[in-house]
Amino acid sequence: MSMPVSPLAPKGGFPNLPVVDGARFAAVEAGVRYSGRTDVTLVELCPGTVIAGTFTRSKTRSAPVLDCRAKLGGASESGAAILVNSGNSNAFTGIKGVEAVRAITSETAKALSIPEARVFTASTGVIGEPLAHDRITAVIETLADTLQPNAIADAAQAIMTTDTYPKGASQQVEIDGKTVTITGIAKGSGMIAPDMATMLVYVFTDALIGFDALQSMVTQGCDSTFNCITVDSDTSTSDTLLVAATGRSGVDVTGVSSFEHALTQVMDDLAKQVVRDGEGASKFVTVNVTGAVSHADAHRVAMSIANSPLVKTAVAGEDPNWGRVVMAVGKSGAEADRDRLSIRFGDVLVAENGQVAEGYVEAEAAAHMTQDEVTISVDLGLGSDAATVFTCDLTAQYISINADYRS
Amino acid sequence: MSMPVSPLAPKGGFPNLPVVDGARFAAVEAGVRYSGRTDVTLVELCPGTVIAGTFTRSKTRSAPVLDCRAKLGGASESGAAILVNSGNSNAFTGIKGVEAVRAITSETAKALSIPEARVFTASTGVIGEPLAHDRITAVIETLADTLQPNAIADAAQAIMTTDTYPKGASQQVEIDGKTVTITGIAKGSGMIAPDMATMLVYVFTDALIGFDALQSMVTQGCDSTFNCITVDSDTSTSDTLLVAATGRSGVDVTGVSSFEHALTQVMDDLAKQVVRDGEGASKFVTVNVTGAVSHADAHRVAMSIANSPLVKTAVAGEDPNWGRVVMAVGKSGAEADRDRLSIRFGDVLVAENGQVAEGYVEAEAAAHMTQDEVTISVDLGLGSDAATVFTCDLTAQYISINADYRS
Repeated sequence: MSMPVSPLAPKGGFPNLPVVDGARFAAVEAGVRYSGRTDVTLVELCPGTVIAGTFTRSKTRSAPVLDCRAKLGGASESGAAILVNSGNSNAFTGIKGVEAVRAITSETAKALSIPEARVFTASTGVIGEPLAHDRITAVIETLADTLQPNAIADAAQAIMTTDTYPKGASQQVEIDGKTVTITGIAKGSGMIAPDMATMLVYVFTDALIGFDALQSMVTQGCDSTFNCITVDSDTSTSDTLLVAATGRSGVDVTGVSSFEHALTQVMDDLAKQVVRDGEGASKFVTVNVTGAVSHADAHRVAMSIANSPLVKTAVAGEDPNWGRVVMAVGKSGAEADRDRLSIRFGDVLVAENGQVAEGYVEAEAAAHMTQDEVTISVDLGLGSDAATVFTCDLTAQYISINADYRS
Repeated sequence: MSMPVSPLAPKGGFPNLPVVDGARFAAVEAGVRYSGRTDVTLVELCPGTVIAGTFTRSKTRSAPVLDCRAKLGGASESGAAILVNSGNSNAFTGIKGVEAVRAITSETAKALSIPEARVFTASTGVIGEPLAHDRITAVIETLADTLQPNAIADAAQAIMTTDTYPKGASQQVEIDGKTVTITGIAKGSGMIAPDMATMLVYVFTDALIGFDALQSMVTQGCDSTFNCITVDSDTSTSDTLLVAATGRSGVDVTGVSSFEHALTQVMDDLAKQVVRDGEGASKFVTVNVTGAVSHADAHRVAMSIANSPLVKTAVAGEDPNWGRVVMAVGKSGAEADRDRLSIRFGDVLVAENGQVAEGYVEAEAAAHMTQDEVTISVDLGLGSDAATVFTCDLTAQYISINADYRS
């Protein structure tokens, strides 16, 4: 299946990502499920690399997710590796799934002469079919022999499933006169409603930092980035975000806010690229909620709007159908008072105090809806807490992708 | 907009509903929004009629819902009326909405010589636009003059919006040698994920019963019928279910289980007819969840499966994609253990103990998926609680209906 690139894809194609000292990449075609494309990637990380991460909170987590989770925070003296395959998620595969993870981590550890406890794997694709792990172990030597510092674009390509373009982002920060680099890649397009993490995201930095400090930055960054996006309200069994700090810059970033800010920027950039590649998406939608009694309530209302099929289809139809926004606020379960609500599409005030705004001209709101990027803002008028969520519209193409594709 | 009748509509068209003594119906074309069809209906109920009901729990409830709610349980000596318009929901219309309800109830009370406190109104259609209530008050005299005991089919027709067929159901029970009749009508097709009630549902019976006893039967019946259906996870601002008992049979049904059973049957029948008319639906889907630690957990898992766009599109594509069922179990938030799950499509055991079942033949599950009625059964393997939810698939037609129609 070959889909045209999303109309919302960043212009200019995959960015030119600066090399992160201490990280090397390789990708090959192993025929896990797809043919004629790469589907397995290996990342080698130098001794001393600290790895933090977050994972899906699904109760039906995949075997690789459980394995990775257990390994976070371990000793970092030796080198480490990340091995990812696309085409099969190795989720809901019982003991066979555990054996597949063991076979892959063991072969990878051997090829790179590192402990198994330092090999992090992920699998993405069909759920429930046994993973043909022998196809993966068969290519590990080749991967190990072809590792290169500047091949991150190949890795971004190899981890795609229904993605229509590879996703990458980077930031560089000057700290104490030295440059610290952060680069990251992600995949994701459908089954996107992350809960603690999204799909597959790998971020690399040459910063020097301990596990606890890095994990805290990652958890916080995730809350305002990957946990604020949704394509279709469905949460994956495989969501994995790993952030690897090689330390090679020699710059200690513990507690350095410019670094934390840059890291969050990379995560934000990748999260939005996932939304821009939402299955069938034709519009990028920002949902702002203000005036809530708590952040949790603001987030709940924003997610209720962002996940409403009736709001999403109205956006697809370029219809400033604010009645459906009212409906989504009402069903969210958050505290709300109909007669204090106000709603804007873009800058156009559509409704306030529980009714259509004085002097509202529908043509003005309709004009905003014709754009590629649509903003829906709701003020609940009750408190001072706010939240923003990013999503896309729901089109007939989402249906045709998912009525045919086996994910 | 004229949609073809849903392929899942009950065969044989609108049923021949027996007359309920004490209830009379009329419908007219008032031009509220639609033209060339009836859009206002009036039901007159005899003195002594007891009216129970449930309503949406949305925080953005419509003015008529708030008005009806306040009137439940009032004195029943005098006659009563139900007046419903389609085309405009009078929701999120501020003080204008309250004034519209007042104008309509006052004119209706005058025309039928009953107290305003006994006039129940409902409005369904576009949210947020002021209701042209003068078009409704202008036809109330005509409605009052044309009331007939056997015109319930006209009422069922007049309350439709995106419905492709009118919905009716009935039951008759023999109690103490006398016949008690229950008939009901409903409308609903999109924005269906009722919470305490659904869209608009009106049930009439000639049974004799007090408010508290009737309300308790209605609340309980609702839990296993209207609260167990979903079309698109979106909850209406107008959901209203009223059950009116005229008492004319002279049969006291307080605590009579055969009556309660028959009443629940009528509600169940109407609830399923709403699902069968789900916007764009091509398949009727039953989701059974067993082995849960609580009923609430079982219901949560069933709703998570029934509302998952990826499960719904797989059903549309006739794909026995059980991996998506696993995903929906995992994201539900309910207690679940991946390695105890089993899943069936129809009678075909697809997965058990956290992996694909021994001897599973996909062609067998695929054959089940080609049918009009699909059953997905999940056993969580943890406890003894169960729940069943009814839904439909998600097709490209849902998108085209909702990207164009202003609801």
